[in-house]
Amino acid sequence: MSGQPETTAYYLGIDLGGTNVKAGVVDDGGTPRSHCSQPTEAARGPELGLDTICRTARQAIAESQISLEAIRAIGLATPGTMDIPAGMLLDPPNLPGWTNLPIRQRIADRFQKPTVLQNDANAAALGEYWVGAGRTAHSLVMITLGTGVGGGIIVDNKIIQGEHSHGSECGHIIIQMENGRRCVSGQYGTLEAYVSARALVERCVEQLPQNPQSTMHQRLANGETPTALLIAQVAESGDRFAFELVMDTGRYLGVGITSLMHTINPNVFLIGGAMTFGRDESALGRQFLERVRQEVRERAFPVPYQNTPILFASLGGDAGYIGAAGCAKLECDRQDSERDQDSERDADGLSR
Amino acid sequence: MSGQPETTAYYLGIDLGGTNVKAGVVDDGGTPRSHCSQPTEAARGPELGLDTICRTARQAIAESQISLEAIRAIGLATPGTMDIPAGMLLDPPNLPGWTNLPIRQRIADRFQKPTVLQNDANAAALGEYWVGAGRTAHSLVMITLGTGVGGGIIVDNKIIQGEHSHGSECGHIIIQMENGRRCVSGQYGTLEAYVSARALVERCVEQLPQNPQSTMHQRLANGETPTALLIAQVAESGDRFAFELVMDTGRYLGVGITSLMHTINPNVFLIGGAMTFGRDESALGRQFLERVRQEVRERAFPVPYQNTPILFASLGGDAGYIGAAGCAKLECDRQDSERDQDSERDADGLSR
Repeated sequence: MSGQPETTAYYLGIDLGGTNVKAGVVDDGGTPRSHCSQPTEAARGPELGLDTICRTARQAIAESQISLEAIRAIGLATPGTMDIPAGMLLDPPNLPGWTNLPIRQRIADRFQKPTVLQNDANAAALGEYWVGAGRTAHSLVMITLGTGVGGGIIVDNKIIQGEHSHGSECGHIIIQMENGRRCVSGQYGTLEAYVSARALVERCVEQLPQNPQSTMHQRLANGETPTALLIAQVAESGDRFAFELVMDTGRYLGVGITSLMHTINPNVFLIGGAMTFGRDESALGRQFLERVRQEVRERAFPVPYQNTPILFASLGGDAGYIGAAGCAKLECDRQDSERDQDSERDADGLSR
Repeated sequence: MSGQPETTAYYLGIDLGGTNVKAGVVDDGGTPRSHCSQPTEAARGPELGLDTICRTARQAIAESQISLEAIRAIGLATPGTMDIPAGMLLDPPNLPGWTNLPIRQRIADRFQKPTVLQNDANAAALGEYWVGAGRTAHSLVMITLGTGVGGGIIVDNKIIQGEHSHGSECGHIIIQMENGRRCVSGQYGTLEAYVSARALVERCVEQLPQNPQSTMHQRLANGETPTALLIAQVAESGDRFAFELVMDTGRYLGVGITSLMHTINPNVFLIGGAMTFGRDESALGRQFLERVRQEVRERAFPVPYQNTPILFASLGGDAGYIGAAGCAKLECDRQDSERDQDSERDADGLSR
């Protein structure tokens, strides 16, 4: 980071989640110069929440030792539902009560800076694309495993955000049309209904009675709560039943990735989020990833399978605010580029 | 077409299929000035096939009354498998023996014109995007129903062709991971395994014994062959069994469209190809389309469903060569635009 010219531009990235809000100042090359996190306390409503966002952001600016004046723009990542072009939160399940909130304008007003809004999973994918596990890729698909399942699709520096802010929602592709599991949104047979942390726990509870030999019975009898983390711990301790639950998650995820391999056909698939079973550092994580790959190998065309790595994401919880800053940078660059072009250059594309 | 300035650029579009090769001269606005078709006779091999392609193309140029000199570039659409950037046919099932053929260069050499290669379903989607049912859309997904199932995804004047020429292969998304039907490529549970003309016939033959009341029994006893066309005719004559086979096709297609609505979230979905049950002009076609929409309504998020028309394509068999010409135009425009830009302008995007 040292030795960079002082003319570097800086961006403030904010990642608003249902639990925590994270903020960091990120330089033009994607390196964070600071990062802070505070509880969102979303239930207290959007007005106090906006105060928390701004307090976290100001703390991140202070810790970066970069002046507010040197910050070119702000990128804000939030969960949906949302209207990205309008800068609005619509009715986000993870931020109950934050409905129809013009959050982009509210943040822009507080800081007097150009501000862009993006979906949190899309922003995380852009972060990985910029400086993470996808940094050498021309295109990528990232799937985020947590309580729910998010997705981000990037092709040639552009997020596939869709015409109604519902692009890249890879958790909502259907992998099982007949007798499919139900996900929390009420849809049947979606990827999320099979591979989310919530789905993993549900499958565990459903199948446990048929598996009397599992040590999971003792853990629950001891008062432990069935969570994805507990299932992973029990699997790592050698319990076959818990291990197969995790492997099934890999198998289902491989089905979803096959569909995306045959539509997007990106350079790389990344698996991120809170539920990655210890990633490359854990035997379970490596076995999980291998199970995903095995399923894709059995289902996909050989050419894209053989040429498309499936990897864990590398930025962890930093991907969101770094990617949000990247969104701000892309938008600033796009506007500069548009200004540079004279009006005759809009002949690009198909005139219709 | 009259009143256009004589400075209009022209493109030669060629659509090479397993059965016929079509060619047409298309002007800068997407209007065909001629179009010709000849049998491909693919089994005679690529050398005679290239002669046929060139003969058809020269006939299209002659009929257009536009000189070869006035043609700016050639667009060539072919079935896969292929390597689009390399301009190669690899091992196309519909053109047996045309393996590892540098077809783009071979055509360019014959005509001494810049030539671009594109997948046929992608080209058809671009044709519809340019001057067909998607002409007002910013993005679209087209699904082509025939013996197989093709797809084309266009976002912002760009075809999602993928990093290994396997993008937009919407027929190969998985809609049923457990106990899925097998498609001709050997994959299980793909959209193609359920909605292709081949799959429709297979489902008919499998289910016919359980439906003794169907008039299909008499038709087959009279020596007729079970084809998608026969099933459509019998359905139109009031046969419940044949009708439900067609409606099931709509239901399955709706599942695939839902997955694409939640990843691409385009402005419009188009259904094209040879098996569209008479399209809007037929009661069966309208009922089929309504069944597709019903399935998407039941499965998709309301906002994208309510804002995304699902329509039949409008260019029929002309979409391929018109779209191929459009690909040629886009590539010429892109190269012009690159030349216009000074090297400093490549600051767009994320420097990594």
